[in-house]
Amino acid sequence: MVEYKVKDLGLASKGELKIEWAEKQMPVLVMLRKRYSEKKPFKNLVIGAVLHVTKETAVLVKALKDSGAEVWLAASNPLSTQDDVAAALVEYGINVFAWRGESSDEYYWCLREVADAEPDIVLDDGADMHALLHSEYPELASKLIGGTEETTTGVIRLKALEGDGILKYPVIAVNNAYTKHLFDNRYGTGQSTFDGILRATNTLIAGKVVVIAGYGWVGKGIALRARGLGARRVIVVEVDPIRALEAVFDGFEVMPMIEAAKIGDIFITATGNKKVIRREHFMVMKDGALLSNAGHFNVEIWIPDLEDLSIGRRVIRENVTEYRLRDGRSLYLLAEGRLVNLVAAEGHPSEVMDMSFANQFMAVKYLYDNRGKLPPKVMNPPYEIDSMIARVKLESMGISIERLTKEQEEYLKSWKLGTS
Amino acid sequence: MVEYKVKDLGLASKGELKIEWAEKQMPVLVMLRKRYSEKKPFKNLVIGAVLHVTKETAVLVKALKDSGAEVWLAASNPLSTQDDVAAALVEYGINVFAWRGESSDEYYWCLREVADAEPDIVLDDGADMHALLHSEYPELASKLIGGTEETTTGVIRLKALEGDGILKYPVIAVNNAYTKHLFDNRYGTGQSTFDGILRATNTLIAGKVVVIAGYGWVGKGIALRARGLGARRVIVVEVDPIRALEAVFDGFEVMPMIEAAKIGDIFITATGNKKVIRREHFMVMKDGALLSNAGHFNVEIWIPDLEDLSIGRRVIRENVTEYRLRDGRSLYLLAEGRLVNLVAAEGHPSEVMDMSFANQFMAVKYLYDNRGKLPPKVMNPPYEIDSMIARVKLESMGISIERLTKEQEEYLKSWKLGTS
Amino acid sequence: MVEYKVKDLGLASKGELKIEWAEKQMPVLVMLRKRYSEKKPFKNLVIGAVLHVTKETAVLVKALKDSGAEVWLAASNPLSTQDDVAAALVEYGINVFAWRGESSDEYYWCLREVADAEPDIVLDDGADMHALLHSEYPELASKLIGGTEETTTGVIRLKALEGDGILKYPVIAVNNAYTKHLFDNRYGTGQSTFDGILRATNTLIAGKVVVIAGYGWVGKGIALRARGLGARRVIVVEVDPIRALEAVFDGFEVMPMIEAAKIGDIFITATGNKKVIRREHFMVMKDGALLSNAGHFNVEIWIPDLEDLSIGRRVIRENVTEYRLRDGRSLYLLAEGRLVNLVAAEGHPSEVMDMSFANQFMAVKYLYDNRGKLPPKVMNPPYEIDSMIARVKLESMGISIERLTKEQEEYLKSWKLGTS
Amino acid sequence: MVEYKVKDLGLASKGELKIEWAEKQMPVLVMLRKRYSEKKPFKNLVIGAVLHVTKETAVLVKALKDSGAEVWLAASNPLSTQDDVAAALVEYGINVFAWRGESSDEYYWCLREVADAEPDIVLDDGADMHALLHSEYPELASKLIGGTEETTTGVIRLKALEGDGILKYPVIAVNNAYTKHLFDNRYGTGQSTFDGILRATNTLIAGKVVVIAGYGWVGKGIALRARGLGARRVIVVEVDPIRALEAVFDGFEVMPMIEAAKIGDIFITATGNKKVIRREHFMVMKDGALLSNAGHFNVEIWIPDLEDLSIGRRVIRENVTEYRLRDGRSLYLLAEGRLVNLVAAEGHPSEVMDMSFANQFMAVKYLYDNRGKLPPKVMNPPYEIDSMIARVKLESMGISIERLTKEQEEYLKSWKLGTS
Repeated sequence: MVEYKVKDLGLASKGELKIEWAEKQMPVLVMLRKRYSEKKPFKNLVIGAVLHVTKETAVLVKALKDSGAEVWLAASNPLSTQDDVAAALVEYGINVFAWRGESSDEYYWCLREVADAEPDIVLDDGADMHALLHSEYPELASKLIGGTEETTTGVIRLKALEGDGILKYPVIAVNNAYTKHLFDNRYGTGQSTFDGILRATNTLIAGKVVVIAGYGWVGKGIALRARGLGARRVIVVEVDPIRALEAVFDGFEVMPMIEAAKIGDIFITATGNKKVIRREHFMVMKDGALLSNAGHFNVEIWIPDLEDLSIGRRVIRENVTEYRLRDGRSLYLLAEGRLVNLVAAEGHPSEVMDMSFANQFMAVKYLYDNRGKLPPKVMNPPYEIDSMIARVKLESMGISIERLTKEQEEYLKSWKLGTS
Repeated sequence: MVEYKVKDLGLASKGELKIEWAEKQMPVLVMLRKRYSEKKPFKNLVIGAVLHVTKETAVLVKALKDSGAEVWLAASNPLSTQDDVAAALVEYGINVFAWRGESSDEYYWCLREVADAEPDIVLDDGADMHALLHSEYPELASKLIGGTEETTTGVIRLKALEGDGILKYPVIAVNNAYTKHLFDNRYGTGQSTFDGILRATNTLIAGKVVVIAGYGWVGKGIALRARGLGARRVIVVEVDPIRALEAVFDGFEVMPMIEAAKIGDIFITATGNKKVIRREHFMVMKDGALLSNAGHFNVEIWIPDLEDLSIGRRVIRENVTEYRLRDGRSLYLLAEGRLVNLVAAEGHPSEVMDMSFANQFMAVKYLYDNRGKLPPKVMNPPYEIDSMIARVKLESMGISIERLTKEQEEYLKSWKLGTS
Repeated sequence: MVEYKVKDLGLASKGELKIEWAEKQMPVLVMLRKRYSEKKPFKNLVIGAVLHVTKETAVLVKALKDSGAEVWLAASNPLSTQDDVAAALVEYGINVFAWRGESSDEYYWCLREVADAEPDIVLDDGADMHALLHSEYPELASKLIGGTEETTTGVIRLKALEGDGILKYPVIAVNNAYTKHLFDNRYGTGQSTFDGILRATNTLIAGKVVVIAGYGWVGKGIALRARGLGARRVIVVEVDPIRALEAVFDGFEVMPMIEAAKIGDIFITATGNKKVIRREHFMVMKDGALLSNAGHFNVEIWIPDLEDLSIGRRVIRENVTEYRLRDGRSLYLLAEGRLVNLVAAEGHPSEVMDMSFANQFMAVKYLYDNRGKLPPKVMNPPYEIDSMIARVKLESMGISIERLTKEQEEYLKSWKLGTS
Repeated sequence: MVEYKVKDLGLASKGELKIEWAEKQMPVLVMLRKRYSEKKPFKNLVIGAVLHVTKETAVLVKALKDSGAEVWLAASNPLSTQDDVAAALVEYGINVFAWRGESSDEYYWCLREVADAEPDIVLDDGADMHALLHSEYPELASKLIGGTEETTTGVIRLKALEGDGILKYPVIAVNNAYTKHLFDNRYGTGQSTFDGILRATNTLIAGKVVVIAGYGWVGKGIALRARGLGARRVIVVEVDPIRALEAVFDGFEVMPMIEAAKIGDIFITATGNKKVIRREHFMVMKDGALLSNAGHFNVEIWIPDLEDLSIGRRVIRENVTEYRLRDGRSLYLLAEGRLVNLVAAEGHPSEVMDMSFANQFMAVKYLYDNRGKLPPKVMNPPYEIDSMIARVKLESMGISIERLTKEQEEYLKSWKLGTS
């Protein structure tokens, strides 16, 4: 019997079409589902998943269920759930607790519903669930086979837990798979962030001054697309000197936020930190500046400061809130400062999530196959999984790659040969 | 008293101008020289350096000498020595054994001259010297304070030595410094490879089909510049599926060499492997194809196969050898298959070498300061050195970066905060 | 008294917000409105406008009305009307006949409503109205002060009329203004076409093979953005050898459609011609190919052939119709083959339309000021208007440009000076 | 009997190799030579050519001679002659008066030698020869069949002559051929300007601030390559608001020179005007700034001001002159302010000149075939020539293009069809 709380089961058929569309673009996961749906290796396994409830996540949890698992799903962000997909998943037999527009209390209630199902393995996106298990469900945490974590932010939080010596189960940092972070963070977020900004504002990027805070993989992808869409100046704000220098040599400007704030037309934060844009920056921005966030939490643009400075605010377009400041300027906050690509657009394209979620699937398999053998640490996904996923993806695109000859393989191992 | 064998000491004044030009673009190394020329921390230290003898290397060895060291220098490539710079260095008091166009025997004779000086620390570029010390100078190797290695190729060879358990001294893989490989390999080789190709051929890149073998940092840089110069198709040949997929998402085509060989106008190898382009590929190439190499050794384009297929060859332009094949086609080999950027142009721009060589300088200092404490392993440079170099470089460009507030520093360490 | 037929007047307040948003990004038109709203130079003038009824058009017709004109507005495309904007314009006092989803009969009924108002000047987008006036309203056409035309397609049609010697009034080809076609066609359509494709499909552009038919200004803009979004291959299909060669040197592949059809993932037509993609091309396409059109009419992708080849079709996502072919492949037609940027997204960004519509405004003024003096020909907009619009636009962006010194002005006029 | 004054006939064999290399990359001109070398249509025709004496020009004048003409050649720039090519041409039977490093007097002496041969048709590059004929050889000018002009600068000068009503013979503005200015000015100069800068300085473009004066076709090409080579900021200085706005939307910064002067690392002028960089700009530049010119004459960087401000100057590298200013800063002038691509590198790649010079060849043929029929005006080359050249070029690259069907051809001519 399926348990759930979703917006409206009547949306299921619309959700099913969405999922079908996603499946057409997720060949790796579809291949894995085919491969394991007969043997059902996850029989008897209870999986708790806290992920953005989107059509792509649907393809993952369907694959987990078809491989034998009992799946409980909650949303990893109060605003990112696609209600029709949630409904379709309930129809498919997934226990879903998620709807778009959860309050903070509702959000944690959903997480607890999943925890109460006593999962063996937990998939997380942002580490809220891992944090909850450690603080409120210590016994459950102690007997967990393991967990996975999708995001950079979540991995940082889990490493902190591990550093403090209190991490209770092994966690595979799916984010650290090459086939995840090299692609999802860079190409996925790079495109979908601008997709979100365009849907929200219909602004022209060509000729604009775009300011990007953070030059990690996400920031790199956004900067690349800002240039590709014709921005006149692409300005990177970074705290790490090596990354800052890389941005410079990649052909971008680098300066502190207090300087960039004065000249930017569009601001995008992607740091994982809080208060990246704050009072002192709002004070000097140009009238009409657009503020958006591509980082996990809605703390990068510090909204309390913005509200404090404003004499009025209104929603002028869907996902665009105008803040009128005392001095007559207006600043426009997109998607309430939450992930603009998920709230104003549809998150990563399915092709990108295909690889990220194939890593999730294989991480579950790895945890399960090695249950009892892994220490309570944050670990990277094994390279063979990574490599296998890349290979299947290339095949699905009809692309062949070069092979080493035997002689070349031996040459690479040898060290004695040199300049002659 | 200075010992040396160079082409012509009379070239010294010309070499000095070159070095002065380089110094203007190497602010980090100039700063280090200033900082240590008074205290002379390397007093009594004998340093053996096997590096491309260029104006940039000159700035490094001058800094080492001014910091107290006795320096012995040989070339790491028989064709890459700038004879005027070699002469200027002799005048400056460096013991130099290097000239452009050394035979293979002469090349190793120069290396042995350096070894015979019984250096305490050895800087190498390609690991020929490290290999020589292990095979011919085992006693000297055993008492060495340590060594450094500049290239990817050399690091692979040293790791093989370490893997076999026979590495005799600690080696800092300077190549692995972020401020080296992220910049030198990518931006330095990316630009200078095309600089070499243009000087050799004066061909137009716009509209051409460029085939790049290898998508490591070097290959990435070359692909980026091929696109930036307007190539119609940029084709990457890779054996690693993850790198191949990255190339695809970066907007390049990927295929095996046997397919690419049929359509390429310009071929560039950057794999570190041998026989990357060989008989079967030469057989199907278009008339007029250009063949060049950006990898360390001249084994990537397999010249014996090319000669075997040819009925005639001639140097049609400096650094361009025409091979006339039996079927009437002509293929053009640039720079005799050696590093095209060093042979046909001037190697990396000084700005890039500034960072790489600042890492060399600091690596020497680290080895010396920690002498006797380091195990005989290949190690990465400490992050603080890396970070310091990036910071000085940014300052020299007049670029400021963002600083974390205390609150932000604490936030990054915390794990308890989450979605609210 | 205002006459109208729109979807629902109750949508007006939503439309007003949209128009307000557009005005914030249309500084040139807002400046013109301010300049002329007091003197009302268009008093007694009846203007018939057949344009896409969008928020940007609203800013134009409001400016015309505020400058004294009586404005009658119909849609230039049955699917592109924003019903809330139409409602808001009625409230503002514009006579509007337009709603989203007009049938072909309804479309022409709306045009006739505008014609029946006996306009003095007619603004058109695609030349349907100009054609109608010449065929059904010859007397009205004979006494018209003049007309304007917004698109390349429309200008071609009007030139044909002029060539046949039957054009009855002067027409300013607004499309030929530099500040129109260099910006609107290239940057506007370039971005908004992908905006439409992404909203319709959420597909990832990075790594894809994008095929673009036509390398006019529109095709150029689309190709540029395809590259900027990371497409692996950008293939241009052209009939003109000079344009084809330009595409090659711009770094794109060129081939006939029958070759491109086999390898494309995403097809975009922008030729102004019909049957650009037809039966023979559908036959060889890959399963899952996306078909979209950025040209004015829905004839570039020849839908009758597609239907003929299909055994089923369904709308799988909004604006995505799946055609299942007999051999099992599915092809996906976006926006029913109509302008994908207008139907699936919001058309050009307001910033771009600002310049195009400032040209429309000034063209009306030029026609009116020179009434009776202009021959019945298609003419380009005067350069001074173009130049003025560019200058105001730059100022609104806070950008200053260089000025010639007197000496430089004289030098440019002189011919005697030479090599010395 | 051949008349000549060149540097050294002994260089001929080296020059022949160069010309052979160029021919391999100039398929269009080679095809024309083949087509006309039998019929010799230019028999009895005396052609005076004032062009950069390079290997590509050699391929053109050989084709003219092989088609029957008697050719007299002088250099169009005192520094751009390749002495070995000049020697080879003498051996081939061309009357050549050109050597690298002519004084101003010698330069004009060479032009007069050509004029004294009483040519029927004159090919010019920069219009110095056309100016000379009008001022010193009025009778010869009056009976000339016609002339051609290669550059934007020259066309401006000739239009001034025409405007004053004193142009004495028809001139085909070869520069205005699409297959010339779209390719040569943009892709040729774009690449070769940086080739020249790199050969002169070996500087790294990545991370630099590049300032480009002029956004005509040449400036556009340079800006594109600056970006493609990784410049951090690409700043365009323009006087025309439409071009300035185009630069902005193309993704470049725009500002007056006085602002750009303060932040630029590398300056490149391409305006056709004089004193583009002058005293007030030198005063505020950064220490170490590089100054180069891509415009026709060496007047864009105003050297008298630079010398006036300096206390010393020296050649620090070939083609790099250091000017030491009173305040301690050094500025570096490349190629003495002359065309940096011709002086420090080899000018345009042969592939580009292939099309430009095929236009020259066909322009000569057009003038000759229509002798006596053309008015004394500056005229554009006929479109059919342009189109034919593009078609041959595409074929030589193995590229096919799309063809219109009959139905499509008719559709394009029709005007009655519309939205349905």
